[in-house]
Amino acid sequence: MLALSLALCAPSKAGPSLALMPLPAQVSIGEGKLIIDDSFSIRISGYSDRHLQDATARLASRIARQTGIPPRRAGKPTLVVECRGAAPEYPALSEDESYRLEISPISARVSAPTVTGALRGMETFSQLIAADADSFFVPTLRIDDRPRFTWRGLMLDAARHWMPVPVIERNLDAMAAVKLNVFHWHLSDDQGFRVESRLFPKLQQLGSDGNFYTQSDVRRVIAYARDRGIRVVPEFDMPGHTTSWLVGYPELASAPGRYEIERKWGIFEPVLDPTREEVYKFLDAFLGEMAGLFPDAYFHLGGDEVLDTQWKQSRTIQAFAAKKGFQTSAELHAYFNRRIQALLAKHGKKMIGWDEVLAPGLAADVLIQSWRGQKSLADAARQGHRGILSYGYYLDHMQPASFHYQIDPVSGETAALSAQETALVLGGEACMWSEYVTEETLPSRIWPRLAAIAERFWSPRETTDIHSMYTRLDAVNRWLQWTGVQNRSGYSLLSERVAPGDRAPALWVLVNAVEALGIDQRQEARHYTSLIPLNRLADAASPESESVRHLEEVVAGLSADPGQRQQRVEELRRAFTEWSRSSEQLRSLLSVRFLLLEASSVSEDLSRIGNIGLRALQYLESGEKISGDWLAQQEHDLDRMAQPRAEVVLAAVRPVHALLDALSRPPSHAEPVGNSPISH
Amino acid sequence: MLALSLALCAPSKAGPSLALMPLPAQVSIGEGKLIIDDSFSIRISGYSDRHLQDATARLASRIARQTGIPPRRAGKPTLVVECRGAAPEYPALSEDESYRLEISPISARVSAPTVTGALRGMETFSQLIAADADSFFVPTLRIDDRPRFTWRGLMLDAARHWMPVPVIERNLDAMAAVKLNVFHWHLSDDQGFRVESRLFPKLQQLGSDGNFYTQSDVRRVIAYARDRGIRVVPEFDMPGHTTSWLVGYPELASAPGRYEIERKWGIFEPVLDPTREEVYKFLDAFLGEMAGLFPDAYFHLGGDEVLDTQWKQSRTIQAFAAKKGFQTSAELHAYFNRRIQALLAKHGKKMIGWDEVLAPGLAADVLIQSWRGQKSLADAARQGHRGILSYGYYLDHMQPASFHYQIDPVSGETAALSAQETALVLGGEACMWSEYVTEETLPSRIWPRLAAIAERFWSPRETTDIHSMYTRLDAVNRWLQWTGVQNRSGYSLLSERVAPGDRAPALWVLVNAVEALGIDQRQEARHYTSLIPLNRLADAASPESESVRHLEEVVAGLSADPGQRQQRVEELRRAFTEWSRSSEQLRSLLSVRFLLLEASSVSEDLSRIGNIGLRALQYLESGEKISGDWLAQQEHDLDRMAQPRAEVVLAAVRPVHALLDALSRPPSHAEPVGNSPISH
Repeated sequence: MLALSLALCAPSKAGPSLALMPLPAQVSIGEGKLIIDDSFSIRISGYSDRHLQDATARLASRIARQTGIPPRRAGKPTLVVECRGAAPEYPALSEDESYRLEISPISARVSAPTVTGALRGMETFSQLIAADADSFFVPTLRIDDRPRFTWRGLMLDAARHWMPVPVIERNLDAMAAVKLNVFHWHLSDDQGFRVESRLFPKLQQLGSDGNFYTQSDVRRVIAYARDRGIRVVPEFDMPGHTTSWLVGYPELASAPGRYEIERKWGIFEPVLDPTREEVYKFLDAFLGEMAGLFPDAYFHLGGDEVLDTQWKQSRTIQAFAAKKGFQTSAELHAYFNRRIQALLAKHGKKMIGWDEVLAPGLAADVLIQSWRGQKSLADAARQGHRGILSYGYYLDHMQPASFHYQIDPVSGETAALSAQETALVLGGEACMWSEYVTEETLPSRIWPRLAAIAERFWSPRETTDIHSMYTRLDAVNRWLQWTGVQNRSGYSLLSERVAPGDRAPALWVLVNAVEALGIDQRQEARHYTSLIPLNRLADAASPESESVRHLEEVVAGLSADPGQRQQRVEELRRAFTEWSRSSEQLRSLLSVRFLLLEASSVSEDLSRIGNIGLRALQYLESGEKISGDWLAQQEHDLDRMAQPRAEVVLAAVRPVHALLDALSRPPSHAEPVGNSPISH
Repeated sequence: MLALSLALCAPSKAGPSLALMPLPAQVSIGEGKLIIDDSFSIRISGYSDRHLQDATARLASRIARQTGIPPRRAGKPTLVVECRGAAPEYPALSEDESYRLEISPISARVSAPTVTGALRGMETFSQLIAADADSFFVPTLRIDDRPRFTWRGLMLDAARHWMPVPVIERNLDAMAAVKLNVFHWHLSDDQGFRVESRLFPKLQQLGSDGNFYTQSDVRRVIAYARDRGIRVVPEFDMPGHTTSWLVGYPELASAPGRYEIERKWGIFEPVLDPTREEVYKFLDAFLGEMAGLFPDAYFHLGGDEVLDTQWKQSRTIQAFAAKKGFQTSAELHAYFNRRIQALLAKHGKKMIGWDEVLAPGLAADVLIQSWRGQKSLADAARQGHRGILSYGYYLDHMQPASFHYQIDPVSGETAALSAQETALVLGGEACMWSEYVTEETLPSRIWPRLAAIAERFWSPRETTDIHSMYTRLDAVNRWLQWTGVQNRSGYSLLSERVAPGDRAPALWVLVNAVEALGIDQRQEARHYTSLIPLNRLADAASPESESVRHLEEVVAGLSADPGQRQQRVEELRRAFTEWSRSSEQLRSLLSVRFLLLEASSVSEDLSRIGNIGLRALQYLESGEKISGDWLAQQEHDLDRMAQPRAEVVLAAVRPVHALLDALSRPPSHAEPVGNSPISH
């Protein structure tokens, strides 16, 4: 094999690009390819166990889905999987996840110290499968790979909207595909308590609307995750975010009363009473039960957003605080955390908390999850705490992938840490809070952006080229469906409800031209509660429009290579024409207008944007002098249309704005003189 | 409620049409509608058990999928489900499946004698949900419903291509949705033995390539089916179709030798030895084990297509036959069947066999499944056997829904039976043999056509209007996706493999313009084996093109209502234009040409058909005199293009042919003089 070492971190627009995400630590690309046809088979060589056998069977099924070629059990193996030993019974922190993948035109081999590394290598193999004119194939190459961070997670909020087990499982498959290794399961909040407790059954009976995981469900998810090399870390948020506990056990609260499951979103007053021993007795028993159910060494107690209203209103709580000499509610909260940490330690668990739990006197082995910034992570490390970063990785904020991609767990305040302190930064977790996400829309909110975050956690620090990331992200997004995750779920459901059986191309055009807004803007748009359906345009739209981003690149490229200019103009014209026509075509669907209530004006504006774009292309092509008045008017109109409405933003404005900018710019400014393909 | 009785069996093109399939026995439609919004909830009134509770929870989830409205557990119930008693532990023959569904503008009620009827009624409710400008709703009405036949089944061959449990489960959901009640599971054949036997483990270990149902899988499927009111009838085909048994147990064969899993399709020589007591001892133990696993009272021993080559070649078998006084191999086969029937009876089961088992001396309680025609069913009934019809319901023959719909279990020879004999005709089963079907393409081969067959089995005999059937079938096909069955699976996989992430509209146009051929034509097209991928155009195409059928209706309607003529012409023009342009657009996808190998010439022809259609529309509109030469040439071309290729047929030929026919017909023949909107 010809070994061409690839400078993977450098901008390599021309170089050979592998549609891999996360990028491996080291890749050498060879010449030729290994064909995948109906003789393809997989064999385990050397160490073997049920875990590995199941994994190879899953890979065979995946490849069968990707290609339509039935898995074969016999014959000369195309892919050999070889490892030297077992994975731990359950995935654990700081495991060796390294592997080597070698592909020649004759066969391929994944080798790894343990089964866990082999899992990672098999995922890489599966991502490499492509098709050309003649066959499916994988390129010949050699990869040596290992993760940068040992903690690479996703937090999923199953409390605010219920997430059934199959949805979790499909998501675990996709997580494994991008080499994530921690599933942080947010299991209780004001709006729901989601796990069966046998000791305290009123938790789920009264706190879940019937939507909870049985203990058998939990074991199933843990086994499913383990088979994919993913740890499961449970979170029971306390002492705040506990309204749902109090429906069945009001005696745990800091204020007397009858409690009901919270239906609204926000931060609420109900909070556990940190002063009564009965509360700790309850939590001791409850945490003991849950410690037995969840095998991971870590256990998350939440600890965020604690309102002290109930504490301040309670004479007995204030008396307790005074007696302990606490000056602030924060000290009372810290006391509660220390008590919980001791209970968790008794049950063999290490505690994790959101960064609010960081306070003097906290046991050193408590792990801090920072949602508020690198500063609290740095503070934690300086105090000897291990930590993970979630700030900047909030998927529910609906930021583009590039935003998350540019945030590094070791950056800003954490970049100033000593080497020893930096070693305490174990990695990060993306967070998927579910106020505005249902089981239906979840996949499209997590994917593909989580793949970019997964690359941040796995790949070498220098892997920062956004153009390369997006090129590969588009490919991985297409490929992800073979894992079974329904990453384009949002659109198809709206489409089927509005126009059953029709492919509704105009709706597709509209949905692709807008971007859904995040939690901040949605909570201002309507009085949302957990009972309001999420079945509208905003729910069908993606956080980031792949097609609009592509058009932005086309506009940016107009002046780059004169040879491709005409092709780019044609591509823009096609898109603008589609936009221009879409509103008329969409009108017939408004017969189901209660689902498309707010879409109508957005749709009319999209057609206007298309028309502006088409006119701009005319200027571009004719060389006609552009009218300053016309330009000013269009820019004014575009600015108006760029305002959020219907809980979406018209992303289509961006490439047209960029086109007008290019038109109005003096050529000398736009590009080197003599190289400008744009005529003014 | 205003009770307007509906003449459901009469052609009712104008009347109110409910998108229900199967049509209920009696319907009265009222005025107004019951709105389904976020206050929707379901309550059980009266008798309740886990079975019913699970069913209402499933209905709530289904409705949540259909509408996006989260299920609600409390509040004033919108739908009350009321039954008087439990279903049997497992669904059984001749159960009362009747129910009543009443919907007023305020609430709805399903009432039934048992939980089984309530299941059927809830399916009807779910099918009725529609959307208009303002909301989701169900129409007000009253339905009194019960099935015509008690045996309404689907036979699925899981032996020739492996069908994983989730595929079976999704299919059971869709079966329940159209009120089928028997899942006949063909579990062994020459190409595979698919069930775990603990007594004879080499059956699955050596006979399945590792693809078999564990006993726990079997129990899971049976429980899943039971929850949906569906019986599970296992079939172990014998003495022929048994090659896969003989790989592990060659001593059962009629000829010595080493046997291997059969990879080809057809009828093969290996056959069990009907003369040795060791064989019956084996089958006694095996059938005992399986009788314990499958709770249904019926058990299918297959019995079809027995080749007697091995019998004729064996001196000992011939000696045995001579000693018994058998003149023919058929008598030896009948002897085997009698022995098996006795074993099944010993294990508490009634035997079913394909109609070859019908022979003198067969126990009266053996049920005959006729795949060869109504005659054998009538013969069986005259001999006192119960029977079911499968002739005419072979889904792998890829006939249109209308073909199957017109075949009645009581027709032809069975129509001549006495009332008492007719009562022995219990119903029918559609058959899905899997030579040319994989788990991927299965749903699109079964659905929606099985819904039309389900109507034949459930609805009153007089329900025979094909136009009404197709109108409702289209709606039900769109609706079926909410059950989770992937009834449009074929296309999306080809599309994703050929053009990942692209919606590939030109491919969609092509796939919709062709129809896949059935087993007879496919087996002649290539040397198929079980290892050849089914991932081509023929696998993506449907058995019956919904869009082409629609265009045929448009052509037929051209002369019907002059007011709508222009609209119809425009609709044809749009379709013909799409066809005309599609081949050029499709060329870019031919970069993955190994998957679209044979599609290229089909695609070029589709464009030609589009052009012929466009030219014909010009003649139609201009009133220009049509050239006889031109017409003859086009018809000649169309006939050529109508020939099967690439294992598909270009259905698009049909509406264009019909259009040319209409053009060439003298007006007086085409329609009443003075009413002709077509100018010649």
